[in-house]
Amino acid sequence: MTALNETHDGSLSSWVEAANRRDTDFPVQNLPFGIFRRDGGGARAGVAIGDQILDLGAALEAGIFAGPAEAAARTAAGPTLNGLMALGNVPCSALRAALSDFLSGAAPAAATAEAVLLPMAEATLELPAAIGSFTDFLCAYHHTRRLSPTGEAPPAFKSLPIAYHSRATSVRPSATDVIRPHGQFLDPDGELRFAPEAALDFELELGAFIGPGNDLGQPIPIAAAADHLFGFCLLNDWSSRGVQRWESQPLGPFLAKSFLTSISPWVVTAEAMAPFRAPAHARDAGDAPPPHLSAAADQAGGGMDLALEAYVLSEKMRGEGRAPERLTATTFLNCYWTFAQMLSHHTSNGCNLQPGDLLGSGTLSGPDDASRACLAELTKRGSEPLVLESGESRPWLEDGDEIIFRARAERQGFVAIGFGECRGRVRPAVPWPAAAGL
Amino acid sequence: MTALNETHDGSLSSWVEAANRRDTDFPVQNLPFGIFRRDGGGARAGVAIGDQILDLGAALEAGIFAGPAEAAARTAAGPTLNGLMALGNVPCSALRAALSDFLSGAAPAAATAEAVLLPMAEATLELPAAIGSFTDFLCAYHHTRRLSPTGEAPPAFKSLPIAYHSRATSVRPSATDVIRPHGQFLDPDGELRFAPEAALDFELELGAFIGPGNDLGQPIPIAAAADHLFGFCLLNDWSSRGVQRWESQPLGPFLAKSFLTSISPWVVTAEAMAPFRAPAHARDAGDAPPPHLSAAADQAGGGMDLALEAYVLSEKMRGEGRAPERLTATTFLNCYWTFAQMLSHHTSNGCNLQPGDLLGSGTLSGPDDASRACLAELTKRGSEPLVLESGESRPWLEDGDEIIFRARAERQGFVAIGFGECRGRVRPAVPWPAAAGL
Repeated sequence: MTALNETHDGSLSSWVEAANRRDTDFPVQNLPFGIFRRDGGGARAGVAIGDQILDLGAALEAGIFAGPAEAAARTAAGPTLNGLMALGNVPCSALRAALSDFLSGAAPAAATAEAVLLPMAEATLELPAAIGSFTDFLCAYHHTRRLSPTGEAPPAFKSLPIAYHSRATSVRPSATDVIRPHGQFLDPDGELRFAPEAALDFELELGAFIGPGNDLGQPIPIAAAADHLFGFCLLNDWSSRGVQRWESQPLGPFLAKSFLTSISPWVVTAEAMAPFRAPAHARDAGDAPPPHLSAAADQAGGGMDLALEAYVLSEKMRGEGRAPERLTATTFLNCYWTFAQMLSHHTSNGCNLQPGDLLGSGTLSGPDDASRACLAELTKRGSEPLVLESGESRPWLEDGDEIIFRARAERQGFVAIGFGECRGRVRPAVPWPAAAGL
Repeated sequence: MTALNETHDGSLSSWVEAANRRDTDFPVQNLPFGIFRRDGGGARAGVAIGDQILDLGAALEAGIFAGPAEAAARTAAGPTLNGLMALGNVPCSALRAALSDFLSGAAPAAATAEAVLLPMAEATLELPAAIGSFTDFLCAYHHTRRLSPTGEAPPAFKSLPIAYHSRATSVRPSATDVIRPHGQFLDPDGELRFAPEAALDFELELGAFIGPGNDLGQPIPIAAAADHLFGFCLLNDWSSRGVQRWESQPLGPFLAKSFLTSISPWVVTAEAMAPFRAPAHARDAGDAPPPHLSAAADQAGGGMDLALEAYVLSEKMRGEGRAPERLTATTFLNCYWTFAQMLSHHTSNGCNLQPGDLLGSGTLSGPDDASRACLAELTKRGSEPLVLESGESRPWLEDGDEIIFRARAERQGFVAIGFGECRGRVRPAVPWPAAAGL
């Protein structure tokens, strides 16, 4: 687990003024990495600071970095963060320390500040990495229990972090539209149909990016797993519930998930989350984690105290000038397994991970109703539609609905940090191409 | 569907003499593509011909190609075939025609032949493509039925090709060792253990490589699907049955499959398979394929008449000089869905495929006992061990066992073609690293 150091010091402030606002997600204690474009230019690596982006390439040119920090910044010069992710904790930590020094030190000359910063509002944010593989876990007990046909989590739930391979090619950054997918499902009369999915849902998850990978046949022991976790993002695992119900026996979800997965574009590093570490999820007496997923440091600090929220903004709400309405307030403390356990389990058969691979936590629902983190739980599979403050009813997502995720880590004695937003707006299904193609 | 043309002419023979033997897998009518290395050099693209490899880069330098064939050969100059796969049928067909002309025409000067050919025995064969994603289907009815807890295929089996995302990073070429993986499973006494998997199995499948891909949100209609299939290979979906049984609820197989998948290194093109096309699998009256997966040409010729076999060679058999013993003789005609249907279904929700993505057919078992294409079927989940001619008993694979797949397409009036081999030898589990790491 990354230790606390001077970059977490709550007394640090920045000459980028917006970074010092109490409500910013991106104070100088955060320093998340991302990939952006400006004015149709190439993809570049940057660091979020207040309402600005520090352009890593421009900062290199301005001579801000030296030594290991400079070497680390150079690996991020390409159009993805995969090179930086591959480096491991020590070089990434050196870069973070240098960024912290520069952004919390004396204000540079105006020309330097101008050369290295750009307003976030002028940038388009891209995927932070070329995501080779995306693995989605099912680690929140109450989500699993509520959606299980038996009302109970499956037998293996507390013995291993259940997971499936998901689709990496359809992961997109926040703000990508959600085209309502076609699919095959049983309609309410039990008739088989191929049509636009009616039961469209969101799932509020936390994502984790793999840092250094492992070779095929070389498991990563639990004690070493934290060294392979680069950082975290918000993840919306959009779901077609009608398709999922019909297609998933016996191999699990396939097309129900692969039409789109949205992630927030800023990767909050494991180091930035150090002040917000918490013990791993409590376990019942006699329910110890299996030996190969048990390490003292991970049990003591593998959890994270991170509050997550989901909001909806419908077409009608937008027209009436309403603010987004909160649907879910939950916390990563509801995750039964730590990301270190997920990662170590993933490699326990020798499976090789690669820098930039993405893990999803699973829908982070908790025990209370307010923490139900998808519509399938909130509406009991559509049978008890939500009634929004706008008067609208929602068994499932309607065209025009935008779902917005936010997350924030707060702890006494530390400056709070946030994840930015993960947004996606539902657009109507496009006509099925076979009509023209056949 | 690719049409028959002069490259399929049974009267063609080659100046590469071994290509004219009746039992060769690689006559001049086949011309599969692959990636090889010689003497520790870089990865290069080649074409199998008899017992030789035609080096595509050397052939380009020798001026053998012109026009579209030359342009197509240049895309294969890199260390993978992804560029060639992305081109689509017309350029690939031009390259095949030029290869056919060169290899079946007048023998070139000895110096030219020497420059462009190398003995296959001197080469190491690599993965033919950088496989971004690997999707495994479950398309053989009798495999599904035999291994279902109910004895029946799941309700959706005949309505859509059931599939799951599998792990692309652990796909390796034939001859890669199979390290027995660790995993968590219930032992026969119902105790939960983490140990080397005892119930190690093979699965005999056919793989298909995606040619041109599709953009996210743009389904590929069934009528266009064949244009996106580059070619085929043998695929061994090594399986940990103990792990699979324990971990798969509710999300399907995960670590049970991701430790290794082996493929044969030569990609037999869809065009090479044109003479061996067959109607799609027969369906019961009233059981038409769903409209979005139904196209006349695919129903008429989306199947393939391809015989597949699995053999075992144990340590004891090796010591006694025995030949590999055949375990399975089956055919791709047992596949209930065509690869065009699998591909079109995969994209029907807008999911994007990329050149070099791999699809697996699922274990190709047929109705008769001899066609059971994995040990779980052959031994009724280990309860009725196979007795080999060597006197050995096999509920599951033992360390030292080598599994060998072969496949051959034969049809009256055409020259038979083969797939080469897909081999893999089981090695003992390596000590669990946690013992040292913790």
